[in-house]
Amino acid sequence: MFLRNGWYAAVWSSDLAGAPVARTLLDEPVVLFRCVSGQVAAFEDRCCHRAAPLSRGTVEGDALRCGYHGLKFAPDGRCIEVPIQSQVPPGARVRTYPVCERWNVVWIWMGDPARADPATIPELPWLASADWKLTPGYIHVGSNAQLLIDNLLDFTHVTYLHARTIAGDPKEATTPTRTERLHGGIRTGRWMLDVNPPPLFAAAGGFNGLVDRWQWATWLPPSTVYIDVGCARAGTGAPEGDRSQGISIWSTHLVTPETETSCHYNFGFARNFHLDDEAMSRLLFEGSRDTFLEDKVMLEAQQRNLAGGALDGLIDVATDAAQLQVRRILDDLIRADAAGEASRRTGQHSRGQE
Amino acid sequence: MFLRNGWYAAVWSSDLAGAPVARTLLDEPVVLFRCVSGQVAAFEDRCCHRAAPLSRGTVEGDALRCGYHGLKFAPDGRCIEVPIQSQVPPGARVRTYPVCERWNVVWIWMGDPARADPATIPELPWLASADWKLTPGYIHVGSNAQLLIDNLLDFTHVTYLHARTIAGDPKEATTPTRTERLHGGIRTGRWMLDVNPPPLFAAAGGFNGLVDRWQWATWLPPSTVYIDVGCARAGTGAPEGDRSQGISIWSTHLVTPETETSCHYNFGFARNFHLDDEAMSRLLFEGSRDTFLEDKVMLEAQQRNLAGGALDGLIDVATDAAQLQVRRILDDLIRADAAGEASRRTGQHSRGQE
Amino acid sequence: MFLRNGWYAAVWSSDLAGAPVARTLLDEPVVLFRCVSGQVAAFEDRCCHRAAPLSRGTVEGDALRCGYHGLKFAPDGRCIEVPIQSQVPPGARVRTYPVCERWNVVWIWMGDPARADPATIPELPWLASADWKLTPGYIHVGSNAQLLIDNLLDFTHVTYLHARTIAGDPKEATTPTRTERLHGGIRTGRWMLDVNPPPLFAAAGGFNGLVDRWQWATWLPPSTVYIDVGCARAGTGAPEGDRSQGISIWSTHLVTPETETSCHYNFGFARNFHLDDEAMSRLLFEGSRDTFLEDKVMLEAQQRNLAGGALDGLIDVATDAAQLQVRRILDDLIRADAAGEASRRTGQHSRGQE
Repeated sequence: MFLRNGWYAAVWSSDLAGAPVARTLLDEPVVLFRCVSGQVAAFEDRCCHRAAPLSRGTVEGDALRCGYHGLKFAPDGRCIEVPIQSQVPPGARVRTYPVCERWNVVWIWMGDPARADPATIPELPWLASADWKLTPGYIHVGSNAQLLIDNLLDFTHVTYLHARTIAGDPKEATTPTRTERLHGGIRTGRWMLDVNPPPLFAAAGGFNGLVDRWQWATWLPPSTVYIDVGCARAGTGAPEGDRSQGISIWSTHLVTPETETSCHYNFGFARNFHLDDEAMSRLLFEGSRDTFLEDKVMLEAQQRNLAGGALDGLIDVATDAAQLQVRRILDDLIRADAAGEASRRTGQHSRGQE
Repeated sequence: MFLRNGWYAAVWSSDLAGAPVARTLLDEPVVLFRCVSGQVAAFEDRCCHRAAPLSRGTVEGDALRCGYHGLKFAPDGRCIEVPIQSQVPPGARVRTYPVCERWNVVWIWMGDPARADPATIPELPWLASADWKLTPGYIHVGSNAQLLIDNLLDFTHVTYLHARTIAGDPKEATTPTRTERLHGGIRTGRWMLDVNPPPLFAAAGGFNGLVDRWQWATWLPPSTVYIDVGCARAGTGAPEGDRSQGISIWSTHLVTPETETSCHYNFGFARNFHLDDEAMSRLLFEGSRDTFLEDKVMLEAQQRNLAGGALDGLIDVATDAAQLQVRRILDDLIRADAAGEASRRTGQHSRGQE
Repeated sequence: MFLRNGWYAAVWSSDLAGAPVARTLLDEPVVLFRCVSGQVAAFEDRCCHRAAPLSRGTVEGDALRCGYHGLKFAPDGRCIEVPIQSQVPPGARVRTYPVCERWNVVWIWMGDPARADPATIPELPWLASADWKLTPGYIHVGSNAQLLIDNLLDFTHVTYLHARTIAGDPKEATTPTRTERLHGGIRTGRWMLDVNPPPLFAAAGGFNGLVDRWQWATWLPPSTVYIDVGCARAGTGAPEGDRSQGISIWSTHLVTPETETSCHYNFGFARNFHLDDEAMSRLLFEGSRDTFLEDKVMLEAQQRNLAGGALDGLIDVATDAAQLQVRRILDDLIRADAAGEASRRTGQHSRGQE
């Protein structure tokens, strides 16, 4: 069960530099492409003539031509040319999806097009600002998207699963988190004072003593998590807001369901220090990717034990608070969508009877 | 749904030079082998004792011995020896299928054996004549057989799918085809006058100017397509029947369903020029195989979008006429088979009641 | 359908030298591990918190810690620590399975724990005696376990399937077997006098003439087969019990169902000659493994033809006597278990109503 009415990250804008891109999203095959004009369009990845995947076609100006029999489609999905014949058969069109390019991400709306309001795309300005440097990546994960969201809102696992990469200080294993409801989302996190920095941060920030460390994760529906993580030299006022003696990274996680048992994971570390240092970019990219690959292995093993992604029959612990609230909000949104859908149908039915 | 009462190509005769050959045909596992006498037999590929595949056995004279416990079977399917015991248990036999070797092809009949009339095997004399040279090949295709038949009766896709291999002249993208009903089959094709030859033909025929080009495809039930393709120097009378200034190839396509979502594709180009030129044979074999591998990629992508191979909900265009007629003929034949089967059963039932 | 109330070989004792071991047994994911105290424990391989496989965790003293969120479990399955919180939630525990280490094998009981009596573990002293040298191995087989048991109780197939490895003399193809019921098991086998030894035995025993050869297989429920195989110089009294001029191997086969269509195959040749000869060990290990890999190929092919492993519609021959008796005994045991289960439930129900 997916929340359909919401903006999901389809691809990074830079992924559409060349050929059309095929991606299954919420169980539907989608092709995304950029017209010569720069406009991005998203179609069902299935030609209306013989069901060939349009992602095997080619962009011609502001249209996409099927690579099998050559039918040509405008960005609004209408077929505008059929080879060898002068007329286009009535009804020849493919389904389109609303898309919106923002923060260097192509967002797609898999639900009711009438409800696709770009104002509800999450605010992620650090992905597209000259003051920040992003090191983006992509991993395919063979687990339900929610298991990955759960993982991103949990800090306990760092000690155990990421012992070799980003775990730093024994206090990580014992410091509780605080969770609060945001307008429409959830925020969870913690401060750890006078701790050893994890290796990746020590290298990035050049710390040689103790630090004050923070981890604050925000989830926004349907499927975006960003984590404000950082360290500052211990006792220099970071908890009170002075980050001048530290480094800070906005760790950004765009999770899009592929099927009930797999998801697309676009991630990126955005930093506001050493912007032009390529070695630093490589360090952060490789460090984040290696860490998230550890998550992938565990998530896929967890998925095999947890067919539908539901938590039925399992025990909850204190640090699960954030993920449980997220699951509750999502369930409410899915229920509200279903109710709205039902009442719209009833409304149409009544009007039909007038 | 397969048409069962019809001759399907099982293997090329030359495939039976050595060990027994296993092939799943119309969803049934079959083993084919050649006895020492030269006779070909086809069994269900499943020993009646412990279900071992008989294709793992060995030919002994005019019998096939199972490779697991050593039971031996005559070409009529009867078990004629059981190791360590003197008697063969009553009823020990495996199912056989009618086979007929013609045109260097082993044809098999997967339906009612009583209806297997060799006279209904398609006429393909160029596959077995000293005046023709064949360059045969085999490709396994992960799509419903009908999608491949559709492909073979369509010339539009050459321009788009085979742009790198056999596409030749812009006129290919605009020249309409003509389709006619044959006795029991379908013929579709076209002439293109004063066109550039496609690279493969230019190389094979040594053309350095424009040609008159023809493409005439014939489908015969259940699953044979041959295409009379060729080019002649432009204006030398080919459309009127004088092919002396051209080259001509009988491109032959034997498509046999494996399952609902896969098929066996035996193909071959037969030519009547440069018969002993091995470089020419290599050129035509590799050229045809590379082209058909392009088809395979697209067909398998199409299959993923088209679970059952049906065209429900799709739009037809003018060039689909031939494939639509073929599908209609096949549907009629399948319905007629089902009706005949039903009336036979009723007849038996009535007799049973007398 | 598995017989659940019985001791199955889970792993060789030596397999638990390091990290926890994951193995699916009778369709259930299990993790086995050895505590620092030496005790072996078996859990459901699924943490009660978020379903992570516990086999990805680490042994800490006499407990197993989950590798995802760090919950810690005692050998009795109780959770004894949850990171970041002082209390363990009530009911936090994982399912355990009775295990018993004997003959250097870890045996597991997948049925009703109350019925797990170690006295019913088969007697296999040669696996753990200083007078015998074992060359153990493991093969995963993609077939129902019963098909492998059938194979082990059949000597006919040696002539056909193992022609290249352990087949020796034409008399193997014609010598009948004798089958007898043991207390709780089945014994089947034969003597072959004045025969050529198979290559592996000739090499191991240094025979350069004819031998008297024996093959006696014993099956004990649920899933153990051992075969007393050997050769002695012909006419030196082996059939009467004098094996002094021969060599003897206890070929041991521990077959444990993984799923309905796959099984774990732990095997080993135990010999009482040339105990310290490493070349001999290598010869016997490689010879047995190569032979059993031939079986694996055939069993997996057979499985594809025999979905559920049942013999419905198949013909039996004389040499199937042993395997048919085994299947009958197993069916009886499974039925008895089901009846016992039903009567226990009824009993509980009656007590519940009092």
